[in-house]
Amino acid sequence: MGRISIKVSRLVGLAITLLGISTAQTPPPSITPAEIEQASSIYFNRCSGCHGVTRKGATGPTLSPEKIQQRGAPYIEAVIFGGLPGGMPDWGRQGVLNPDQVKLMVRFLMNEVVVPPQLSFSEIQKSWKLLVPPDKRPDKPLTKRNWENYVGVILRDAGKMAVVDGDTHELVTILNTGFATHILRSSKSGRYFYVIGRDGKTTLVDLWPEIPNTVAEVRPCLDARSVESSKYPGFVDRYAVAGCYWPSHFVIMDGITLKPLKIVSTISYAKGQGELVTESRVAAIVASEYHPEWIINLKESGQTWLVDYSNLEKRGRPLGLTMIDADLYLHDGGWANKRYFIVAANTQNKLIVIDTKTRELVAKIPAGIRPHPGRGANWVDPTYGPVWATGNMGTPQLTVIGTDPENHAGYAWKVVKNVELPYTGTLFDKTHPNSPWVVVDFAISPSPEGAASLCAISKATLSVDHCWEVPGAKEAGIRMVHPEFTKDGKEMWVSGWGKPGVPSFIVVYDGRTLQEKLRITGDWVLTPTGKFNVYNTANDIY
Amino acid sequence: MGRISIKVSRLVGLAITLLGISTAQTPPPSITPAEIEQASSIYFNRCSGCHGVTRKGATGPTLSPEKIQQRGAPYIEAVIFGGLPGGMPDWGRQGVLNPDQVKLMVRFLMNEVVVPPQLSFSEIQKSWKLLVPPDKRPDKPLTKRNWENYVGVILRDAGKMAVVDGDTHELVTILNTGFATHILRSSKSGRYFYVIGRDGKTTLVDLWPEIPNTVAEVRPCLDARSVESSKYPGFVDRYAVAGCYWPSHFVIMDGITLKPLKIVSTISYAKGQGELVTESRVAAIVASEYHPEWIINLKESGQTWLVDYSNLEKRGRPLGLTMIDADLYLHDGGWANKRYFIVAANTQNKLIVIDTKTRELVAKIPAGIRPHPGRGANWVDPTYGPVWATGNMGTPQLTVIGTDPENHAGYAWKVVKNVELPYTGTLFDKTHPNSPWVVVDFAISPSPEGAASLCAISKATLSVDHCWEVPGAKEAGIRMVHPEFTKDGKEMWVSGWGKPGVPSFIVVYDGRTLQEKLRITGDWVLTPTGKFNVYNTANDIY
Repeated sequence: MGRISIKVSRLVGLAITLLGISTAQTPPPSITPAEIEQASSIYFNRCSGCHGVTRKGATGPTLSPEKIQQRGAPYIEAVIFGGLPGGMPDWGRQGVLNPDQVKLMVRFLMNEVVVPPQLSFSEIQKSWKLLVPPDKRPDKPLTKRNWENYVGVILRDAGKMAVVDGDTHELVTILNTGFATHILRSSKSGRYFYVIGRDGKTTLVDLWPEIPNTVAEVRPCLDARSVESSKYPGFVDRYAVAGCYWPSHFVIMDGITLKPLKIVSTISYAKGQGELVTESRVAAIVASEYHPEWIINLKESGQTWLVDYSNLEKRGRPLGLTMIDADLYLHDGGWANKRYFIVAANTQNKLIVIDTKTRELVAKIPAGIRPHPGRGANWVDPTYGPVWATGNMGTPQLTVIGTDPENHAGYAWKVVKNVELPYTGTLFDKTHPNSPWVVVDFAISPSPEGAASLCAISKATLSVDHCWEVPGAKEAGIRMVHPEFTKDGKEMWVSGWGKPGVPSFIVVYDGRTLQEKLRITGDWVLTPTGKFNVYNTANDIY
Repeated sequence: MGRISIKVSRLVGLAITLLGISTAQTPPPSITPAEIEQASSIYFNRCSGCHGVTRKGATGPTLSPEKIQQRGAPYIEAVIFGGLPGGMPDWGRQGVLNPDQVKLMVRFLMNEVVVPPQLSFSEIQKSWKLLVPPDKRPDKPLTKRNWENYVGVILRDAGKMAVVDGDTHELVTILNTGFATHILRSSKSGRYFYVIGRDGKTTLVDLWPEIPNTVAEVRPCLDARSVESSKYPGFVDRYAVAGCYWPSHFVIMDGITLKPLKIVSTISYAKGQGELVTESRVAAIVASEYHPEWIINLKESGQTWLVDYSNLEKRGRPLGLTMIDADLYLHDGGWANKRYFIVAANTQNKLIVIDTKTRELVAKIPAGIRPHPGRGANWVDPTYGPVWATGNMGTPQLTVIGTDPENHAGYAWKVVKNVELPYTGTLFDKTHPNSPWVVVDFAISPSPEGAASLCAISKATLSVDHCWEVPGAKEAGIRMVHPEFTKDGKEMWVSGWGKPGVPSFIVVYDGRTLQEKLRITGDWVLTPTGKFNVYNTANDIY
């Protein structure tokens, strides 16, 4: 299951531990090394995303042994089994953890924090495999398919990605990627997909052969969420960067071989004026087209780093960095007008706007509870001018903000409209320049109807036009997630995210009428989550 | 004595420990908390500079409990008492440690590493004292003295600095600065001295009142070696930066109040391609005049960071950084032609040249054993053009390198001459544009004659003109250290660094003839080490 193998024998060398957390007053319940291994694996898979590898807390609260002991085993057991309204999932009720596993987790959490090992550059280098060298790759696309309209579909719990033909809806191929594959990004040329799993495995997929294939892989992290390529003119497909949750660092790689080039720790002080944060996880990364830079967001230290990769060929591999103090805890975000990067500070319920042209913070905007934009949605409103929108995990609203300080200064960086929605639990909102709609999901809605539903907001009226429950979803416990448009915007695809091991579906809608056209199904359609159209992803169209 | 008070009760919150070092095979000898406190203080004062706070080693080797246990108590005791030829001082023989203290240190080193606490930004803020607000300070110099020719003299073991009139040789005032005061820097205007002690205490001294006074203080580090101000046009006296040994970070402060503004961790990967270095100490810092930047050298991670302070007033306090992978372990260095920063990588016996204009590494030059330039010396050689020179701690040579790639490309970044010297142990070499000499000390020579001697290298002949033993020095166990010229170069001052508590002297030489003119003496002349002429320090003249 889990890919962080925590053996005491590996804890040699330098590791970071929380001395303060090892001073529980009462002796903790006993736990065997085998149980620690099993519990660590569960913790990594289910808990660390919100509570942190070192249990310091982020989206979820801190889980120190003292605190867990103080609350007592029966309470903690009930929480792990049945969840909490604030967002804690009901792992027991969902059947993800059986009662014995729930009890094990309680004992595990009452014991001292087990810190995973570090990962040196030489270990990362050893993990690098160049499967197809650049000179053995095609010079031009060998497929007759419209590869720029390919859609990469993450099959999350299968640890795979599917490449689907956006014109014909045919499955082109399925490739093994990392455990609990998290995200994929297109290179600016569109030729390559960069895929990263939660276990840090990073895969480079070449779309030009007749059948797309994996040409390189490396494991720069033990826990990861983000990968991106270099998009500035002159650097197209030149570099890639993997953002790690653990250890807290990012690794710059050659863009067409994934050869590791440089490693930078993200251990830093909270907002540049606080405590040292040793678990400072790399959240969203996007590539700038204004500067040869990546925008790298540090969750727990609340900093946005602009990372200039343009001088890496010089001696001493000079890497430029602009450290901007943003807010806590940075999560995901996207471009507005390809100049402003808007990132959710999700415990502050704020949106942080970074002007990547002038390299400064320009606004902090109050949003709903835990805004979660994915990349958000851009369009031009007749009154407010260019706007950008995000959903919120905890508030049934689409938050729409003005993004044009030059020509619509009165609305810029203000909430111009909160579009009321029927449910909470939105993970993604998406649009396309050729679509009249902004479509939102309610993927983590506590309501089964909500999780099975979508809403269409009209760009013309800035209000909900209609919502609909996707037929067959609720009955099968399927959550509709991640609307994505095809290259020309004529279709919108939404994943039906079902139980692990049970085939579900992807619904294809007409991009203009939002009528269901067909469903992509098959034995391979397992836990589909994010879908990434090559052209739209390469060009940041949303 | 020591100022890092290590109490177990302070080790709450986040600290960094070396898990690998706590796995000694045999049980370590017992040691009481009081003994740990005493030994920690000795370790900080005498050992950590070379062996590191976490005993990972730097200039000196790693001191893990396993290694110490393996070598055995009698051997380690002998080394601490009697020293080693590679540079380990003879603490027992010198009388710095008595036999009981030597035995205590052996037991201390066989036990688990005690890691000092971290230091949060809010703790640093609490240590800040604005003693004289800017609006209560004079608008113009109130003294009739030629304050630009003041010389700040570090009275190291007294924890004080003296301001001496460079024209009259009179003592102007003595001010309390940090424990084992390490360095002082002039602001670009010359008005302020920034002083930092080994305990991290940072003091701002205003030279414009009739009697110079301390106007602000702060403690940004628990262990420190460097401080600098902003020198780029438009930022004169605006900011200051303190470079810390422990915790591994630097702190940017307001230049005229020392108010802490931003804290940046230096925890980083060795040379950008190695292991994570959690004790990554800030060695030399200098201010650029090509860019609004400081050049900050990280000892154990072997990186030079160019830190751009020019955007700190923008929202989000954007701080620019260029991370250059240099070599191990970076120590001190100085300007060549005010464009190239040359830093000693002292375990590699190399000089690293950073072009601060183009922000890249331009050369790695082999030097003698453990080069130690201080700031080095610049002059123009008739054959080689502009050159820069460093002494070496372990080789009896002055290493002279060409520094003019534009007009003397054949000699640039090459050793053009190794000037043979009679002793090893050079800490500093210094010159002045108006002096025909480069003068070197042998401050840490194992030979008492050497430590009492100075040599004059002729710029005209690139060879030693003459060396001399300073009368009265050897007999009193005084080491001659740190030649420094007055503003006009008409005088050269050298400290006679004597035993703590015993008044010694500063010798004043004629800058041209090198004849002794007089000695500055008095009860206050206690352990004088570095001397900093206001004008020369403000303008980086050496």
